[in-house]
Amino acid sequence: MLNEKFLNENDLVLLSVKDHICTLTLNRPRHYNALSMPMIESISTALDKINEDKEIHVVILAGNGPGFCSGHDLKEICENKNQAYTEALFSKCSQMMLKILKLNQPVIAKVHSIATAAGCQLAASCDLVAASEKAQFATPGVNIGLFCSTPMVALTRSVSRKHAMEMLLTGDMFSAEHAFNIGLVNKVVKEHELDSTVEELALKIASKSPLTVSIGKRAFYKQIELGISDAYEYANAVMCQNMLKNDADEGIRAFIEKRQPKWTGS
Amino acid sequence: MLNEKFLNENDLVLLSVKDHICTLTLNRPRHYNALSMPMIESISTALDKINEDKEIHVVILAGNGPGFCSGHDLKEICENKNQAYTEALFSKCSQMMLKILKLNQPVIAKVHSIATAAGCQLAASCDLVAASEKAQFATPGVNIGLFCSTPMVALTRSVSRKHAMEMLLTGDMFSAEHAFNIGLVNKVVKEHELDSTVEELALKIASKSPLTVSIGKRAFYKQIELGISDAYEYANAVMCQNMLKNDADEGIRAFIEKRQPKWTGS
Amino acid sequence: MLNEKFLNENDLVLLSVKDHICTLTLNRPRHYNALSMPMIESISTALDKINEDKEIHVVILAGNGPGFCSGHDLKEICENKNQAYTEALFSKCSQMMLKILKLNQPVIAKVHSIATAAGCQLAASCDLVAASEKAQFATPGVNIGLFCSTPMVALTRSVSRKHAMEMLLTGDMFSAEHAFNIGLVNKVVKEHELDSTVEELALKIASKSPLTVSIGKRAFYKQIELGISDAYEYANAVMCQNMLKNDADEGIRAFIEKRQPKWTGS
Repeated sequence: MLNEKFLNENDLVLLSVKDHICTLTLNRPRHYNALSMPMIESISTALDKINEDKEIHVVILAGNGPGFCSGHDLKEICENKNQAYTEALFSKCSQMMLKILKLNQPVIAKVHSIATAAGCQLAASCDLVAASEKAQFATPGVNIGLFCSTPMVALTRSVSRKHAMEMLLTGDMFSAEHAFNIGLVNKVVKEHELDSTVEELALKIASKSPLTVSIGKRAFYKQIELGISDAYEYANAVMCQNMLKNDADEGIRAFIEKRQPKWTGS
Repeated sequence: MLNEKFLNENDLVLLSVKDHICTLTLNRPRHYNALSMPMIESISTALDKINEDKEIHVVILAGNGPGFCSGHDLKEICENKNQAYTEALFSKCSQMMLKILKLNQPVIAKVHSIATAAGCQLAASCDLVAASEKAQFATPGVNIGLFCSTPMVALTRSVSRKHAMEMLLTGDMFSAEHAFNIGLVNKVVKEHELDSTVEELALKIASKSPLTVSIGKRAFYKQIELGISDAYEYANAVMCQNMLKNDADEGIRAFIEKRQPKWTGS
Repeated sequence: MLNEKFLNENDLVLLSVKDHICTLTLNRPRHYNALSMPMIESISTALDKINEDKEIHVVILAGNGPGFCSGHDLKEICENKNQAYTEALFSKCSQMMLKILKLNQPVIAKVHSIATAAGCQLAASCDLVAASEKAQFATPGVNIGLFCSTPMVALTRSVSRKHAMEMLLTGDMFSAEHAFNIGLVNKVVKEHELDSTVEELALKIASKSPLTVSIGKRAFYKQIELGISDAYEYANAVMCQNMLKNDADEGIRAFIEKRQPKWTGS
């Protein structure tokens, strides 16, 4: 149950919707958008609202200020060194990361600057990642005696073992270009082109049937954890369900008739 | 039970065998080799025959005409919009894809042009993929309201999550070079070099012990779905079995004696 | 139960410790460090000793002589063609590979030359791999009728399916640069820079809290085999445990106070 008091804390996250694209902006700029408990709860609440909003087709996750997201709030952690707080913190943070995967809409991380520790995990948890060539990625927990074990869950599901291990064991900063080469990032562009690149990508995805996209996204993360025979059995059923939707009927007919489809979301 | 009536439909797939290499050519050139139900059944039947043929060491899967394979036959789908047909279509198609993985012989996809939707899945399902630099890969189902959920099963087992998601959500065409960079394709060559590249690769593999290759291929797909400890336990047993074969005995002796081995397939 | 008689066989493996870095050098130079049964047992015994040694923070695995490691000892295999030997060989070898993953300390493979068959598996089993640009990687068992089914377990967990299959089916030698591009190798450097590169990497990791590193390494290989929800549940618990350690407390405080941390390993 999410804490209602954070529903209106629009200073921690900013939401704006335009052309069916929701931009969710982390807004603790002076703290490099560190994931304090209230920040985690604000993002979670925002994701819950987005998930129910049929007008939103795509989400852009961005950060305000000099950093994309620096991970957990170390000062808050220092001030709350007890088991109940620690357990709640990591549990809520992981639930928030999983909400991104379970969200009906695709989420594009717009990484303009540093994404470290749980901030790197946040980017890795998004369906797609676009980065400025000035962005940097790291899992530096090892430098402060606290291994990035939860960020590692998202990281190892995005890049190969050797690359993940190198980031985790060294704690080093890795460039956007390196992140692109190892498969963590989909697009790297010049700093001044990041906004337009992400907007273009979001508009393209927003033009598809949101129903189809949500069916596909859900299936993506479910089938990936199955053996291939079970994955096909499951995916076959998803295809049959998808085929019965009006949007599939319309899409196929529009394709054959060489015209633009009109989605009804049914 | 495969439908016998397609066994002789040699207009849908063409089979030719030379130097222990079987070339299976999709032959609906005017339809970009779309996977109609009869096409799927013809490929399945051909694969069953190949699987039992000890003279065949390697399979090349190619497409006749302007496309490698454009995926499902949308007109056929439109004309058969009922649950029984849809379920049979996806079930038979997935079974056909799995047949490639279960085949005794390795399969090399020779992708000279577009491989889209289930056509991209077909390429991704092959053990190896060689592509012309003019080849293009896409999972564009999202554009017609029908997410490429079954192609995604093969795609996500070949490339990283971020790259798969980008293909699935945008529906965009991706170049052979991009497909190479993300691990979907083993070799990209100039258009006029594709035939010779694939032939050379096939001849090389055909020169190995077909028994050894079939043992290894089966083990590959089985162990990859296990936890690493179980995978080692299984692979140890496979190694011991393989070691007892005459071909291993001959191969090791030939290596030590610095001569070419003579495989007996036993 | 390891055979005590190999505990002192310091001719097969050499151990040296400096600055908390243990270099484990395979020492059958004239045999390209082939993994004979005594060699496997010597490495296993060395790993057991390293695992218990709190003074060792990082391990470098190197090879003496012209090769890094050429895999199993084919002459020994030829001379011992019976089921009991074969089963013991592969079982002990796989256990040795798993010991690397289970080791408290990270292991860096320093690959200066050829790493083939079980030698390629050995490199792939290390947490990180640094290679000279003259290094070469292959799984050539297919050439001698004995598919690299056990090396494949490590290989397929390091690189994508298509790339692994190409190495396994062709048996070809692949350059260090190719191994880097497919994710098998973390760093490729000029031959004369390999020692300093590996030393720098080892020193960097040795400067972290060994307790934190061992917690993280264990969690890495455990969580990677779980579904993502289970992985997060497990990783949350690891984070909470890690947070209760003095080294985490010290590390976080040192970070906030902008000073170097002093690890106590508790």
